[in-house]
Amino acid sequence: MPVVTSEVRRGAYYDSVVLMQLQRGLLGLAGVIDAGVVMATPANRDLLAANDLMPDVAAGPDDLLVVVKADSDSAAAEALNQVDLLLTRRRAAVDQEFRPRSLQAALGMLPEAAWVLVSVPGRYAASVARDALSLERHVFLYSDNVPLADEIELKHSARSKGLLIMGPDCGTAIINGVGLGFANHVRRGPIGLVGASGTGLQAISSHLHSLGAGVSHAIGTGGRDLKSEVGGITSHQALELLANDPETRVIVIVSKPPAPDVATRLVTAAQSAGKPVVIDFIGYAPPARQLGPVHFAATLSEAAELAVKLVDRENDDRESESGLRPHHASNLADRYVRGLFSGGTLAYEALLSLQAMLVPLYSNAPITNEQLLPDPLRSQAHTILDLGGDEFTVGRLHPMIDNDLRIRRLKQEAADPAVGIVLLDVVLGEGAHPDPAGELAPIIAEITGGQAVEVVAIVIGTEDDPQNLQSQIDRLTQAGATVFRNVTAAVAYVGRLRGRLVSPGFPPVSLDRLNRRPLAAINVGLETFYESLKRQGAQAIHVDWRPVAGGNERLAAILARMKK
Amino acid sequence: MPVVTSEVRRGAYYDSVVLMQLQRGLLGLAGVIDAGVVMATPANRDLLAANDLMPDVAAGPDDLLVVVKADSDSAAAEALNQVDLLLTRRRAAVDQEFRPRSLQAALGMLPEAAWVLVSVPGRYAASVARDALSLERHVFLYSDNVPLADEIELKHSARSKGLLIMGPDCGTAIINGVGLGFANHVRRGPIGLVGASGTGLQAISSHLHSLGAGVSHAIGTGGRDLKSEVGGITSHQALELLANDPETRVIVIVSKPPAPDVATRLVTAAQSAGKPVVIDFIGYAPPARQLGPVHFAATLSEAAELAVKLVDRENDDRESESGLRPHHASNLADRYVRGLFSGGTLAYEALLSLQAMLVPLYSNAPITNEQLLPDPLRSQAHTILDLGGDEFTVGRLHPMIDNDLRIRRLKQEAADPAVGIVLLDVVLGEGAHPDPAGELAPIIAEITGGQAVEVVAIVIGTEDDPQNLQSQIDRLTQAGATVFRNVTAAVAYVGRLRGRLVSPGFPPVSLDRLNRRPLAAINVGLETFYESLKRQGAQAIHVDWRPVAGGNERLAAILARMKK
Repeated sequence: MPVVTSEVRRGAYYDSVVLMQLQRGLLGLAGVIDAGVVMATPANRDLLAANDLMPDVAAGPDDLLVVVKADSDSAAAEALNQVDLLLTRRRAAVDQEFRPRSLQAALGMLPEAAWVLVSVPGRYAASVARDALSLERHVFLYSDNVPLADEIELKHSARSKGLLIMGPDCGTAIINGVGLGFANHVRRGPIGLVGASGTGLQAISSHLHSLGAGVSHAIGTGGRDLKSEVGGITSHQALELLANDPETRVIVIVSKPPAPDVATRLVTAAQSAGKPVVIDFIGYAPPARQLGPVHFAATLSEAAELAVKLVDRENDDRESESGLRPHHASNLADRYVRGLFSGGTLAYEALLSLQAMLVPLYSNAPITNEQLLPDPLRSQAHTILDLGGDEFTVGRLHPMIDNDLRIRRLKQEAADPAVGIVLLDVVLGEGAHPDPAGELAPIIAEITGGQAVEVVAIVIGTEDDPQNLQSQIDRLTQAGATVFRNVTAAVAYVGRLRGRLVSPGFPPVSLDRLNRRPLAAINVGLETFYESLKRQGAQAIHVDWRPVAGGNERLAAILARMKK
Repeated sequence: MPVVTSEVRRGAYYDSVVLMQLQRGLLGLAGVIDAGVVMATPANRDLLAANDLMPDVAAGPDDLLVVVKADSDSAAAEALNQVDLLLTRRRAAVDQEFRPRSLQAALGMLPEAAWVLVSVPGRYAASVARDALSLERHVFLYSDNVPLADEIELKHSARSKGLLIMGPDCGTAIINGVGLGFANHVRRGPIGLVGASGTGLQAISSHLHSLGAGVSHAIGTGGRDLKSEVGGITSHQALELLANDPETRVIVIVSKPPAPDVATRLVTAAQSAGKPVVIDFIGYAPPARQLGPVHFAATLSEAAELAVKLVDRENDDRESESGLRPHHASNLADRYVRGLFSGGTLAYEALLSLQAMLVPLYSNAPITNEQLLPDPLRSQAHTILDLGGDEFTVGRLHPMIDNDLRIRRLKQEAADPAVGIVLLDVVLGEGAHPDPAGELAPIIAEITGGQAVEVVAIVIGTEDDPQNLQSQIDRLTQAGATVFRNVTAAVAYVGRLRGRLVSPGFPPVSLDRLNRRPLAAINVGLETFYESLKRQGAQAIHVDWRPVAGGNERLAAILARMKK
């Protein structure tokens, strides 16, 4: 009959590695069937219970709970007696080299360390990271459970100093060939990675390696970087850094789906990176396969494969810059885009691609709730209208047959000085108006002439259609419209017309310190990360970090007050 | 000084074409500056107001409102006097050939008509469609504003008879080379289309044509077919029909994003179509570029381009069927999939692809709210766990370093007889466990041996990683796991392991009537659709349809009661 016994050590702080090794030590003892060694958080108590290891004892999140299931009372008691011995044995193995107790001391020993790795428990992590920033060091912040407010404050502070905070909850980075945290051994090469996802970076970098390619830097951002509240600060810094890095020829960005506004800004920034960028926002509906220099991948493996192809193709990829007709309208980047569609799906596809570049964007047939146009009769900011929507067609012919509504709206939009580009579709074929270009062209000529608004038209049809495809295209072109045969090409053109956004004006992250070899770093937290740095030939110092006052928060607060 | 005058004709029903032509007639008169001729719905009144054409008169949705803006009182009055004359002139042009007044009479004249096109106003459309079904005819239902309940009832009824209801709000179809509604002239060919989107079908079919390819049939479903309430009835019928059609070699499905449950069932059905299928759910996050025979396109043009490639490649595309190892576990299609991931992004990517095939699917790191696993300690149905989630890692090492939690959960899942497949990742590299396969393999051997559960492992790493990639793969394989190097390949394998779903057991739509030439149809509603059928060489009869009792609903109800 198995016996479960336990011991609680109140307010004791132990490194997770120590806990794992203690549990393994206990499991190796005679008569022990199972064992659990955890901080007694509610989640960990549930986990113990699920394994029939939860004793009926009072223990809280700050208490160490040691549980042993053994085949007899004596074996259980004997196991608990070994706890101190097992802990001591562990410590003896470690205490052979001198270890500083503070970051400052460690930097005194290794002043060339540009990096600080932080993997202490979440509630202590922000304070260590803050110290590192104030000492002008980049931070790899592995710790999770760091409050969002701390992340925001740390990232603003880092950005203003031209420093990087990778994380919190950043699992993986590769800087100048050296892996930080969890990282695979991959050859160096021309592909730079930015990842809000640690295993995403691992999967892509491993696959790149298996394809014969290599990585310049892989920069982690932490999983929350692309939330609206954080705004992608680290991602933008990393993108800019890789855009400036002469060793990086293609950039890959990987993340779970970002907040829509953050995605839009990052896609826009990627379009001005000056090199091909592959984006894999896993589970994000891609606006297209490609928008100018930005390519969208559906999976991690595809992201790697695309990047390799783009390295090879990089030099002839400038074609996306060509094909821009001379146009009259100016300041298009500051003026609005208005789409007047007769085809619902064409409107939807346009909205889908444009939402990756324009914000705020409205529609009477929105994709997200925020995009709902309050009054379909009045456009606002960037607006894409489906004129075949029910609100426009009750007791009225479809706009593919009757152009009246669209012509009125076209005049209305062009009269608005805030409008720079009007996008419209012309759908040919059976059932449709016999000569849509004939009705639209005079109005388009008026618009593109006088008010210097650009008109971009998408013509859907075949040369066998009754309207005569080529003559429809010719009439629109002669009237001053730029004509495309599908939505994606038209939207990419709109992107080029609107030109590039300026960079936000924070100091760039210094490439000099990033590309310095050998990499040097201070490690605060998980010892395995230190060992891994040393194994990779990096210079490293491990800090023998302990929470202030042994983790007793009341005492720590008193001490902090005394320091002031 | 312009004058605005108006006339209201109460309770009068007019075809939209008549209204458009009346408006044009008025605009052509001397002294007329602008004119509006609409049924006075709130939306149309707003539109008139936006054009400074809304007079201060009482008029409701059933009333015809004629508004004239002219340069003098006399010109305005003269224009209104012309209304009757303009309406009569129109009628005279039309009344030259004999036209039946009912569907029954039309079918008496053209009994071989397999199709009825319905484009009467929404509130009358369901009743016309119901008549057509009871006369055993397929329906192309262009009308919009048809109540959802009517659509559901019509589609259930059609399905039970092996008939198609394309619509309501179906703009486009091509049946046996003849376009119905709005359709482009495209050559016939081996690509069959299914579309909940009219302009989507037009854009794809036009692009196919420009690429030199052609269309077997293009079947519209109406925009709401892929809502949960409708369940994709027409889409499933159309998919089955094209799967059975010997002239169709590749199928393309296009729609705005379907309800998730409908998408999952349609993707699953597509996987058993027996031919390559291209899916473009515009704005849907694709689970991958390809899952077995199903390919996902991001844009309408890409859908067409992919379909053309697949026609060429069709014969060597069977490779996706190969590579299935002999396996012990049986009835995998009826048993659950459980994923135990250490990498958060790998879990997310797996969830994203599996949600296209498995329902219901749960996770502690869900993509949609419905997927949230209530108790992370207990899996239910299909479950994908991120064991690196915060709820599992407080005060505990990450599962990439410490396998204890995963080994316990692996045993727990395998002990559940409802579980057929366990999916797990093994992430190598710096920072990770020095020999994960060494710890996992014995448990995997136990599982795949005794309980006949399939284990599918994804190994992420390079041959330079400290763990020795090949020996890790070998140990897992020897223990009975099937090993892949990325999530997408593993998920495609899971799809193959689970095999094919049986078809739902309704009578299939008869290909015989569909492929019959020349196409013959009855048109009820927009005359332009009739003209278009005739121009394309189809046999057609136009019904001179009028609402019962001239659209007076109270009178119509009395008449309907008297008929009983």
